[in-house]
Amino acid sequence: MRMVDLIKKKRDGMKLSRKEIEYIIQGYVSGDIPDYQMSALTMAIYFRGMDDAETANLTMAMANSGEIADLSPIKGIKVDKHSTGGVADTTTLVLAPLVAACGAPVAKMSGRGLGHTGGTLDKLESIPGMKVSLTMEEFIENVNRIGLAVIGQTEDLAPADKKLYALRDVTATVDIIPLIASSIMSKKLAGGSDAIVLDVKLGDGAFMKDYESALKLAQVMVSIGENAGKRTVAVITDMNQPLGLAIGNSLEVIEACEALQGRGCRDLMDVCMFLGSHMLMLAGVAKTMEEAASRLEYALEKGMGFEKFKEMVRAQGGNPDALEDYSLLPTARIRYDIRAENDLYISKLYAEKLGLCAMRLGAGRERKEDVIDLSVGIMLNKKVGDFVKKGEVIATVHANDEERLNNVLPDILNSIETSDERVEKPKLIYAVVTKDGITSL
Amino acid sequence: MRMVDLIKKKRDGMKLSRKEIEYIIQGYVSGDIPDYQMSALTMAIYFRGMDDAETANLTMAMANSGEIADLSPIKGIKVDKHSTGGVADTTTLVLAPLVAACGAPVAKMSGRGLGHTGGTLDKLESIPGMKVSLTMEEFIENVNRIGLAVIGQTEDLAPADKKLYALRDVTATVDIIPLIASSIMSKKLAGGSDAIVLDVKLGDGAFMKDYESALKLAQVMVSIGENAGKRTVAVITDMNQPLGLAIGNSLEVIEACEALQGRGCRDLMDVCMFLGSHMLMLAGVAKTMEEAASRLEYALEKGMGFEKFKEMVRAQGGNPDALEDYSLLPTARIRYDIRAENDLYISKLYAEKLGLCAMRLGAGRERKEDVIDLSVGIMLNKKVGDFVKKGEVIATVHANDEERLNNVLPDILNSIETSDERVEKPKLIYAVVTKDGITSL
Repeated sequence: MRMVDLIKKKRDGMKLSRKEIEYIIQGYVSGDIPDYQMSALTMAIYFRGMDDAETANLTMAMANSGEIADLSPIKGIKVDKHSTGGVADTTTLVLAPLVAACGAPVAKMSGRGLGHTGGTLDKLESIPGMKVSLTMEEFIENVNRIGLAVIGQTEDLAPADKKLYALRDVTATVDIIPLIASSIMSKKLAGGSDAIVLDVKLGDGAFMKDYESALKLAQVMVSIGENAGKRTVAVITDMNQPLGLAIGNSLEVIEACEALQGRGCRDLMDVCMFLGSHMLMLAGVAKTMEEAASRLEYALEKGMGFEKFKEMVRAQGGNPDALEDYSLLPTARIRYDIRAENDLYISKLYAEKLGLCAMRLGAGRERKEDVIDLSVGIMLNKKVGDFVKKGEVIATVHANDEERLNNVLPDILNSIETSDERVEKPKLIYAVVTKDGITSL
Repeated sequence: MRMVDLIKKKRDGMKLSRKEIEYIIQGYVSGDIPDYQMSALTMAIYFRGMDDAETANLTMAMANSGEIADLSPIKGIKVDKHSTGGVADTTTLVLAPLVAACGAPVAKMSGRGLGHTGGTLDKLESIPGMKVSLTMEEFIENVNRIGLAVIGQTEDLAPADKKLYALRDVTATVDIIPLIASSIMSKKLAGGSDAIVLDVKLGDGAFMKDYESALKLAQVMVSIGENAGKRTVAVITDMNQPLGLAIGNSLEVIEACEALQGRGCRDLMDVCMFLGSHMLMLAGVAKTMEEAASRLEYALEKGMGFEKFKEMVRAQGGNPDALEDYSLLPTARIRYDIRAENDLYISKLYAEKLGLCAMRLGAGRERKEDVIDLSVGIMLNKKVGDFVKKGEVIATVHANDEERLNNVLPDILNSIETSDERVEKPKLIYAVVTKDGITSL
C-alpha cells in the first residue's frame, strides 16, 4: 500500500476501505506518512467527501490511535456531553454539576477554546488554584467520591486527531463534515463514557452555518456513536446570537455560578435543562423527559448544583470561595458600558463577531500557543428581542488595555443591531437527532 | 497575507492574483511556506483549476524563483525544443545536431528520464566521457564555436518548479494541466532561449491520454510563451506507440546515429523533419516550411547533422568514435529475439507498457535516486501496420540479468498485439498550435 495511491483513489472519487484508513492513520501517527501527503488527502476529502462507513472507520482508527480511557471503575452509566463550539456557551459549567447533583456520574474531558469559541478548561482555570490535569486515578477517584470531575484531555487521547486537527487548521480543511464528526467522536469514544449527548450549534457563531449541514453533522455523529455501541443523542441549538450573556473566561464562571443559583438567563437555562434531561435519561436516572426536567428543577431550586460545583472546585485544588466572592476571580481593570441612545429593541447580536471581539480583547486564542487574559470579555445585558430604554446598558466591555479596547470597540458596536420596532425572540432548539430519526422542535 | 487564506480562496473556486501567486512561490522556495500547505493548495487546484492568467503568473513566478540564463552572448535566434515526454523519443538527439548544421544555434538544457519516459541527459551519458554539466561560460562558448550544446538544467534554474514537482509526484497532483504547463514553461523561460517549439505527446504512452487534454496543454503553453515575448509553436504528435524503434539509453544513441546517417525509421524522421522545420522558421533561417524542410533534407543527405553530433560529443569530452563503433557504447550481455510465430501484421505496440518494461530491465528510474543501466532496453524491428513474416524478428530485448529478463518478458509480449489482417498505420502528427490558432493535420 502506498499513500500516494490512496490519495489518488480518494481524489478520483473512490472509497477508502477500513484497512486503507487504518494504514493512513497508523502511518500518520508514526510519522511514516508526512504532513504533506495527509493535507493533500484531506483536501481531496473536502471535494469528494466520505461516506458513513469511511467516516466510522476513520473515527475508530483515530480513537484507537492512543489509549482508550477505562472508566469501568466508575459506578453507573457515564454520560458525556459535547458542544461543537459556540459563544457564551457556558452549558458545561452549569450542566456538569447539576446533572451530577441529580445522581448521574459526570466524568468529563474538555478542550480549550480556539478562535471565536471558548473552552471549558480555560474558563475553569480562571478559578484560583483550579487544576484541570488530574491523573486517570485521581479523575476516577473524584467521580466516585463526589460524582463529578472535569479535566483536560490527556496527551494519549486520540493522538491522530490532535495531529490531524492541527494540520487541518493551517490547510483550509477544517470545515469538512466527515472530518469534524470523526474528530469529535474519536475523542468521545476514546474518552470511555457509556453514552453521549451532542450539542450541535447552528448559526453565524457556529461552525455549521446552515440547518442542512448541522443536521448532517448530527446524523453522522449519532450513527458513529451508536455503531460503536454508545447511546448517542444530538440536539441542534441556536448560535446566531451568544447563548448566555457572558463572553470571556472568569465572566463565564460568574455566569455559571449565577445560573446554578437560579439567576441564569433564560436561553442558557432552557438549553441546559433540555440537554440535561437527555443526559439524565441516558444515564438511567430518569424515565421520561418530564421526570428528568423536574429533577433538574428541584436540584436547581435547592442549590444542589451550585454545592456540587463548589465540591468539584475544592476537589481539584481550586478555591471555592471565588464562586461566591467574584473579586477573587481575575478581574479586568477597565469596564466600558455600551448604552442605548434611544428606546429600542435588540434585533441582532452577531455571535461570531462578538466572539472574535472578545478574543481580540485577550479572552481567546488566535493560535494554539497564544496566552489568554482570563479577566477580559464582554458581558451582555440584553439579548435579541429585548426592549432597552434610552440610557440603559446593553453590554459592558471588560478590558485591561485602553488601546485594545479602542481598537475592538467599533467592531463590538457593529455586532449589535437595534430596531425601533418589536423583534421576535429567535428559535432556540431546532431538532433532536437519535438513531430512530429526527424530531423537529 | 496568510497561506491558509490563499488555500481557502482557491478551494472555494476564486482566482489568485499575481501578487498572491508570487507570495506563494517565494514563500515556498524560501521555506516559509511548508510542503503541507503547498500540497493542500495543489490538490485544490486539481479540483478548481487555474485560468490562463493564473497559470501565466505561476509560470513567471517559478521562472523568476532562480536565475534566468542569459544567452545574449550567443549570436542568432536561439530556438529551444521540448517534448512532454514519450517512449523511443530520440528527437532531441537527431534534431539538435541537424538544426545546428542548418545554421540555427542550439543551446539546449535537458532533463533526465522518469517513469516510463526517457531523458536526453541519460542517453547522452551512455557515450563514454560525455559531460552534460558544463558551466554557463563553457555552454555559451561551445554554442558560439560549433553551434550546438546540450547540457543538464543547472540547480539554479527554476528551483520552485524543482521543489514543487517533487512534491506533486508524491501527492497525486501531477496530472493537472496548468501545473504541467507552468512546470515546463517556467524552465523554458528560465532557460533563456528566444523561441520555443513544443512537442506535445498524445496517447497511451504520454501524460496526455486524450486529444482535448493535449490541445488544452498546447494552447496554455503557447499562450504563456507568447505572453512572455517568446515565439512559441506546439505540435501535437502521436505516442500511442513508441516513436522510434529504440527504447533504452545507448540503444537510442545508436538510433540517433543511424537516423543522422539517413537510416532512421520513418515515424521518427517525419516528426524530426516537422519539428525541425518549425525550429528553422522560428530561428529565421528559413522563410517557409518547404524551404526549411529542404534545408534539413540537404543537411541529412550530406551527413552534416551526424558530423555536428560528433563535434558536440567531442566538445563535451565524449569519445566521438563511439558514434561509429557502437561496441564502444555500453552493451548488454543478453539479447533475446522476439519472433513472429506466423505471418502477421503488428496491430498495437503499447508505448507506456513498453516504456515501463524497459524501465524494469534497468533503462529507467522508478524513483529519482535510482541508478540506471545504460546498456539495456528494447529494440523494435517493426511498428504498427508493418507486415512480419513467420520467424522474422519483431523486437530484440537487451538485458544484463536473466531473472529480470524472465520477469519482464511476459509483459513485453503482452505489449505487442498482432493481427492476421492488414492494419492501417496510425496518424503521426495531429495538429499545430500557434498564437494564431489551431491547424489540424
